Amino acid sequence: MEKFVSSREDMYGLASTIIMPESVWAASGHLENFTDPLDGKKFNTMFKSEAGARKGETTNVYLRPELAQGMFVNFKNIVDSFHPNLPFGIAQIGKCFRNEISPRDFLFRVREFNLMEFEYFILEKEWEKHFEYWRKEMWDWIKEIGINKDKVHESEVSKEELAHYSKRTIDFEFDFPFGKKELYGLAYRTDYDLANHKLNYYDEETKKTFIPHVIEPTFGADRTMLAILTGAYAEDELGGEKRVFLKLKPRIAPVKVAVFPLLKNKAKLVEKAREVYKMIKVAIPQLMFDDNGNIGKRYRRQDEIGTPFCVTVDFETLENDTVTVRGRDTGEQQRVGAKELLEYIRERLK
Amino acid sequence: MEKFVSSREDMYGLASTIIMPESVWAASGHLENFTDPLDGKKFNTMFKSEAGARKGETTNVYLRPELAQGMFVNFKNIVDSFHPNLPFGIAQIGKCFRNEISPRDFLFRVREFNLMEFEYFILEKEWEKHFEYWRKEMWDWIKEIGINKDKVHESEVSKEELAHYSKRTIDFEFDFPFGKKELYGLAYRTDYDLANHKLNYYDEETKKTFIPHVIEPTFGADRTMLAILTGAYAEDELGGEKRVFLKLKPRIAPVKVAVFPLLKNKAKLVEKAREVYKMIKVAIPQLMFDDNGNIGKRYRRQDEIGTPFCVTVDFETLENDTVTVRGRDTGEQQRVGAKELLEYIRERLK
Repeated sequence: MEKFVSSREDMYGLASTIIMPESVWAASGHLENFTDPLDGKKFNTMFKSEAGARKGETTNVYLRPELAQGMFVNFKNIVDSFHPNLPFGIAQIGKCFRNEISPRDFLFRVREFNLMEFEYFILEKEWEKHFEYWRKEMWDWIKEIGINKDKVHESEVSKEELAHYSKRTIDFEFDFPFGKKELYGLAYRTDYDLANHKLNYYDEETKKTFIPHVIEPTFGADRTMLAILTGAYAEDELGGEKRVFLKLKPRIAPVKVAVFPLLKNKAKLVEKAREVYKMIKVAIPQLMFDDNGNIGKRYRRQDEIGTPFCVTVDFETLENDTVTVRGRDTGEQQRVGAKELLEYIRERLK
Repeated sequence: MEKFVSSREDMYGLASTIIMPESVWAASGHLENFTDPLDGKKFNTMFKSEAGARKGETTNVYLRPELAQGMFVNFKNIVDSFHPNLPFGIAQIGKCFRNEISPRDFLFRVREFNLMEFEYFILEKEWEKHFEYWRKEMWDWIKEIGINKDKVHESEVSKEELAHYSKRTIDFEFDFPFGKKELYGLAYRTDYDLANHKLNYYDEETKKTFIPHVIEPTFGADRTMLAILTGAYAEDELGGEKRVFLKLKPRIAPVKVAVFPLLKNKAKLVEKAREVYKMIKVAIPQLMFDDNGNIGKRYRRQDEIGTPFCVTVDFETLENDTVTVRGRDTGEQQRVGAKELLEYIRERLK
């Protein structure tokens, strides 16, 4: 969201409906031949339902199997409301549904899943330039969220295997522990969809009306999570014991810091630890407090969920207002002044 | 999200599935008698579909008509993963679906809509205390997001009209221009749902197993938007002309600041305006740049979408590095040094 929508001036976020009428899926070609934007394979079927509860007065509706059509059918709303100049994009994150005959294969065959996608509208003659631009942006994204880039491989879809709407498609595949699987896709969809939905664009400068072409980056959200988790899974030995931990990039770790009082039954330690907790919480809300079991067990629990830093309040804290900060990857501990703690952690979370 | 989940220690965010099998809706009582959490009325029907594409091997599934059941069926997952102490809550924001026979009545009869809801798990004997606590929290929320509180009225649901699962329910109704309508609901659901789903809770301190009771605040997300928009709609006269504007609380205005060069065809003004735009963008991303038409028209455009501040770069800016800041509600302008601009705006956006 932040990288591709909020921080840009040319991208419009959208939340389109999940249920759409048969006519949309007829115009898009889905009822005849729906091709998966990630796998490039022909897909079996969509979830069908009926709108309207009176017998004989119902309409066939379908749960969206992808996000793209919701963006195309809202194209005119965006253009009429914001008058964007080309190039511009429409972006969407949301649930999609496919009526898989037998859900399986980790989360590669599921009935309900999350996609992140945008349609970027351009002049036909500039498609190669924009294709390359988004290709680079997708690699930047991969690096930024901490997916091991050495495990990601581009795969050019051959002319014969291209979806009916695409002139060029690159798959981004990831080396999962169980094999290579599609993670993302980048497609040049030409003007296929806007033409099907009978939509066009009026350029105020040239006074011409034409159909923009489309570059479409697609990101599997659940697949991204799985790639991050399998990539971060690590085992080593620490203090003579085998350890399992998640080597998550601090930026995406769901819990950034855990705060412990050394002992649960010493009121002064607990009180001070609560104080430290509250001080950090204001600036870093993804925080945990734990006073169960011994310190060693608490460290291991945090290691398993990938918490980058553990802060312990002990008896020395009560004397000189310093705490122990323990780093996840090395297990090393450092004493840091409580006053410098927030700055110390922030520096290392970047 | 920030108020009710991220900033709290006792609330767990969840994203449950939209499609759920018939067995869930049988256990919850929905297949027999589904009562709307906002309206308290018996509801007609859910969207039905079939999972599995092979004839004769399909299963009946339903699109969720509310969020609560997704939280109840995930109760055990949350308890087993986080070991929360009572009281704690599960929170969810998401789409819900109802197969309305005739969608109408603004957005009070729609087939696809957004709810925000949490189930707060408590000891039975403390239900009144927690009920009052959430009642107050809901009023705080109403004030914080800028809904006119004088237009919100509590309505105690009478014993006869209570849903089958509830021992007490308060509706929060809003005076829309077209009449009074339900906005939020607060219900004491007893242990009805967890008992139906055969779920319970083991208290490590008392070593006892029991079924927690539930307080449930429900917020209509689309209704919230409509209440804010209709409440913010304002008309007045400014500079001798009639004006329509949205008096949105700066905190929730989608665009916080608009930046204009006085004239579009003076390169130095445009360049400086772009500079000012970029400077603000880093700190306040909800920003617009506009150089179309004359200044008066640009002001009116921003008034209509409720932008609290317009910043204009003019010839004086090039001389002494000050800009004009124009406030939405009064239309008054002030000259502010470009260096002080960010601080000036930030102060007033609080």
